[in-house]
Amino acid sequence: MSLAEYTRNFLPEIEHQIKLVLESARIDEDDSLYQMLGYHLGWFGPDAGAKAQGKRIRPLILLLVTETVSGDYRNALPAAASVEILHNFSLIHDDIEDNSDQRRGRDTLWRIHDVPLALNAGDAMFSLAFLALDNLANAHPPEIQLKANQMLSATCLALTKGQHMDISFETQLQVETTEYLRMIRGKTAALLAASMQLGALLGGATSQLQRNFNQLGTNVGLAFQVHDDILGIWGDAASTGKSAASDLITRKKSLPILYGLEQKGRFSEMWEAEITAENVPQLAAQLETEGALAYAQQKAAEYTSAAKDLLSQVESNNPAGDALAELITFLIKRDA
Amino acid sequence: MSLAEYTRNFLPEIEHQIKLVLESARIDEDDSLYQMLGYHLGWFGPDAGAKAQGKRIRPLILLLVTETVSGDYRNALPAAASVEILHNFSLIHDDIEDNSDQRRGRDTLWRIHDVPLALNAGDAMFSLAFLALDNLANAHPPEIQLKANQMLSATCLALTKGQHMDISFETQLQVETTEYLRMIRGKTAALLAASMQLGALLGGATSQLQRNFNQLGTNVGLAFQVHDDILGIWGDAASTGKSAASDLITRKKSLPILYGLEQKGRFSEMWEAEITAENVPQLAAQLETEGALAYAQQKAAEYTSAAKDLLSQVESNNPAGDALAELITFLIKRDA
Repeated sequence: MSLAEYTRNFLPEIEHQIKLVLESARIDEDDSLYQMLGYHLGWFGPDAGAKAQGKRIRPLILLLVTETVSGDYRNALPAAASVEILHNFSLIHDDIEDNSDQRRGRDTLWRIHDVPLALNAGDAMFSLAFLALDNLANAHPPEIQLKANQMLSATCLALTKGQHMDISFETQLQVETTEYLRMIRGKTAALLAASMQLGALLGGATSQLQRNFNQLGTNVGLAFQVHDDILGIWGDAASTGKSAASDLITRKKSLPILYGLEQKGRFSEMWEAEITAENVPQLAAQLETEGALAYAQQKAAEYTSAAKDLLSQVESNNPAGDALAELITFLIKRDA
Repeated sequence: MSLAEYTRNFLPEIEHQIKLVLESARIDEDDSLYQMLGYHLGWFGPDAGAKAQGKRIRPLILLLVTETVSGDYRNALPAAASVEILHNFSLIHDDIEDNSDQRRGRDTLWRIHDVPLALNAGDAMFSLAFLALDNLANAHPPEIQLKANQMLSATCLALTKGQHMDISFETQLQVETTEYLRMIRGKTAALLAASMQLGALLGGATSQLQRNFNQLGTNVGLAFQVHDDILGIWGDAASTGKSAASDLITRKKSLPILYGLEQKGRFSEMWEAEITAENVPQLAAQLETEGALAYAQQKAAEYTSAAKDLLSQVESNNPAGDALAELITFLIKRDA
């Protein structure tokens, strides 16, 4: 099977599994909480559908890893639902924390229902990520179920630590690139790492192989984020779907920008002044001159190279392994 | 040992266990997240100390139940830390949702650090409640650890469903007393029920006995809340520490008020008009005339009676059981 075929087969089953779990959010005859969660997941309301649902990358990766290690993806579906639900918990709360009005082209949950109900709906989603794991009982002994639970809670803490750093950076005068890399290790890479490790655990992989998949997920996550940071400044607006220079205008402290600030050169001075759509190309060019693009590209290359080494170690030559490699390559090398 | 002696012995150990777990919130040399959580728990900052820490009722109850069923409280300490951490997660988020400035006589976390960091600190606290259970590994097999995890996640969902109803009530024109009772079953009673059930589980009680303790916790929680609602209108300001009539002035849809509104009589009309410190005594008197106080007292008596029946079923005649009975009586029958 190709990646496209795996995706076509897995997506409806992932969705079904998430729906099973979300049923627990009904309050007798009152389904208002259930409706809120289903709206956020792209099932209900205006513009519901595939685009509003997102790509379900994490559960897809998890199931592909299970099959790569010769497990049966059906025995990992509860964990696939869990990581997607956890991801969406973090999005609901991120949108409140970032004051974001839009998510996947639709109004964010807090914009529609206000902060108190949306914040609490995020907490319900958090709870459901753990409840989803209860369904592992049909196929796994308590030791494995317990390990899955522990991986999930450790991941939650890593996510919140990463988010704490990210929010703190906004008001911090100086942020070092090393701190930034630690932040994205939590905020972006931890859940990808957990998805891969859970897939390996539930596919019956050895502890060593599980750790390798965790490392693979970490490096994919880091490569993905640094690549995203590059696109945020030098990307082509047409293919990224956002203004190419938006990270400069929104003053997002992304990796290339932090590198530029560390140089304390001309870019650093320009950063202190007003940034407009007009002078953004000059800032981007100055940042490149000071080596920020090369630095970020080198970092991305390091993580990509580590990911490829790990992939060659963990990959069995089976169709699922090939599909996993294809998905990882897609994530790391989206066109600029 | 008396309740006072148990409390004196248990409290420092509970605090120590929570501290062990909170260490995980350090981000290398950066302890700003740890400090936020420690502030909320009453350890650091202005007015830190016993009053800022609260009474730690839930972990105390949990440990007393463990001892009541002839278990060793030391084997239940990780769960005691867990329920207290979970309780404090819900307080951090409640304070944001309710726009509350003060908690236990101090500024709330969001007032000091603003909503984004405080919301995320609540999420970290949520994660830590699950991580706390990892420390059960020293004394319990995986099946028991897994059950503890599953009880915790089911409780989290019950809490968020209760909170969803509570927030929704504020803007709902009509709220039935039955809906209200279902709401406090989640928001107030679920965590007390889980604390008792976890204490029984970790003390080696049978499933039947665990369920009885769960029911006991539910009834204690319901009796406690209804009693609190009565105090909120007819309580003595001196002993409750808040204005006796505050629930009328803040228009809190508590049980007696909802009962009064259901009568569609004079109280219901007065509720539509302005409520001031001056006319509050009249409203309280009218509410009593229409039977709201008697109704609430009868409800509280029902729950108290159910709790006493259950207590007589589960109580072993040992000192811990006597202390547990004393603590429960204190919770249910605080002076008006």
